[in-house]
Amino acid sequence: MKLVTYSRSGRKSIGAVVADKVIDIAKAYKLMANEEGIPSDMKSFLQGGTVLLEKARQAVEFAAAGGRIQETELADVIFRIETVDIHAPISNPNKIICIGLNYRDHAAEVNLEIPTIPVLFSKYSNTINDPLSPIPKPEDSDQLDYEAELAVVIGKHASHVEEADANQYVAGYTAMNDVSVRDYQVRTSQWLQGKTFDGHAPMGPYLVTADEVNDPHRLAIKCYVNDEIRQNSNTKELIFSIPYLISYLSKIMVLEPGDIIATGTPHGVAMGLKPPKYLQVGDKVRVEIEGIGSLENPVVLGDKAFIQRQFLAKHQQGL
Amino acid sequence: MKLVTYSRSGRKSIGAVVADKVIDIAKAYKLMANEEGIPSDMKSFLQGGTVLLEKARQAVEFAAAGGRIQETELADVIFRIETVDIHAPISNPNKIICIGLNYRDHAAEVNLEIPTIPVLFSKYSNTINDPLSPIPKPEDSDQLDYEAELAVVIGKHASHVEEADANQYVAGYTAMNDVSVRDYQVRTSQWLQGKTFDGHAPMGPYLVTADEVNDPHRLAIKCYVNDEIRQNSNTKELIFSIPYLISYLSKIMVLEPGDIIATGTPHGVAMGLKPPKYLQVGDKVRVEIEGIGSLENPVVLGDKAFIQRQFLAKHQQGL
Repeated sequence: MKLVTYSRSGRKSIGAVVADKVIDIAKAYKLMANEEGIPSDMKSFLQGGTVLLEKARQAVEFAAAGGRIQETELADVIFRIETVDIHAPISNPNKIICIGLNYRDHAAEVNLEIPTIPVLFSKYSNTINDPLSPIPKPEDSDQLDYEAELAVVIGKHASHVEEADANQYVAGYTAMNDVSVRDYQVRTSQWLQGKTFDGHAPMGPYLVTADEVNDPHRLAIKCYVNDEIRQNSNTKELIFSIPYLISYLSKIMVLEPGDIIATGTPHGVAMGLKPPKYLQVGDKVRVEIEGIGSLENPVVLGDKAFIQRQFLAKHQQGL
Repeated sequence: MKLVTYSRSGRKSIGAVVADKVIDIAKAYKLMANEEGIPSDMKSFLQGGTVLLEKARQAVEFAAAGGRIQETELADVIFRIETVDIHAPISNPNKIICIGLNYRDHAAEVNLEIPTIPVLFSKYSNTINDPLSPIPKPEDSDQLDYEAELAVVIGKHASHVEEADANQYVAGYTAMNDVSVRDYQVRTSQWLQGKTFDGHAPMGPYLVTADEVNDPHRLAIKCYVNDEIRQNSNTKELIFSIPYLISYLSKIMVLEPGDIIATGTPHGVAMGLKPPKYLQVGDKVRVEIEGIGSLENPVVLGDKAFIQRQFLAKHQQGL
């Protein structure tokens, strides 16, 4: 399935995209089973594991087939996709774990050796942003950069798992832009402060469930700025594979449903160009991952007024 | 108030410690007001801001006075502290923000210059551990270290706040041990993987509300290993003050109720001793902060079986 977090008139819920429609999963399940059984928050849904996933699949098929349902009942369950807002699939992950320098071509570009141990860093959940929403450029930096990344979404608690078993802990995949403020990133030894500005992780539009992705290590991954191609690689260039990363991470920390592992970015970031071509207000950044989805985010001035309007308000509402 | 997250027979709830008693805040409020009005989860409670804090204060005074309450009713509201389990005050913060090298004496000890910009790094919430619970030593490391830290708990959404206004965003303070696995910390350029092992942030026992702390920049802070004093400093040695940090951070990211800022550790960590004296299985580590509280955690072998029993189980239950 292609799962989404969507909203109509403000209320967020989870859905499945079928052709040009979004099917509300909780409502479809209720129509089918005559009982509540599926939460409307993606993290809670993933915590339900394969049992809820199977219920969701049946409910979506039931609603899509239209079968014994009245048309009036379906009006509140199936929506044309252009009539809803699509949000990041998960707004409240417990962890966003980022892998640095995980493409052979990118490590070379920034003059760092190919790592033999994964480099881990983090973004907080304040970074999460919707697939079409603005990326705020900090007022006091002119080094705003993009990083197209395939993100893995964890579906099941994982602790001390072996590489051979790792795939069963994957709920699915999504596209992410690991937006980075390079001067902040390198002003101290630790990258965090350049990585965790509000809104600096546009994500989505879909959480594509693992069963729909034949081989996550063979996907074209691209990033365009104003239709100029900047990153053009393939996930086969990953230094550390997804199962390797899950196993490695799970021996340090419990991975939980909804946790996001951003697997790293390929060659072509603005910082690595000669001269660098950082993002400017008015630019549009598009991340495309084959079979997973695309993000397109305009760059806007992230002054205090903008941030407080967009992100403070969102957090105060608990969204 | 000295707020706690406590449990009796498994269910977690929030309380206030008065002398040798814990008063359940939600239940005390219900007795007083004849209505529900206070959540039993600390993060949700803090999201209610000063309104809920004031309600809690009244409810605690009401129950402590005993006034017009039947003794049988109080039996379910007030408990002797030795009959309950005290947990970390917050189990699910959106952010644990750590400040590196923020004591003048510690920066010298590890041979790093005194920073002019705060060094930020993170721990994930899987690290949170109770004030008396075991710290797991990873099987494949012999460089387990302690770091006594004063932690600030955010009480109110903060975005782009000035230093002069920063104090109003503080809910209170707690003690934390920023347990660190030094070989993992330095095996790549980014410290995260040495900082975020399961259970590596014992915290508590109290969240001491800000009104009870006269000056957070004048508190003795100590760490003992098996009664040998290892760290012995004072928060007046902080390089970046708490209001400065809140203002600095809030210009990068929205701070949210329940977010934790660990303000850094003083001189005396195991790594800095000649020769280093890392923690061994069987050691007891005690962190003491004047007027805030003490933690005492035994070190145990954190093999796969222990981790899965302690932490995987906890996370699977959503605790």
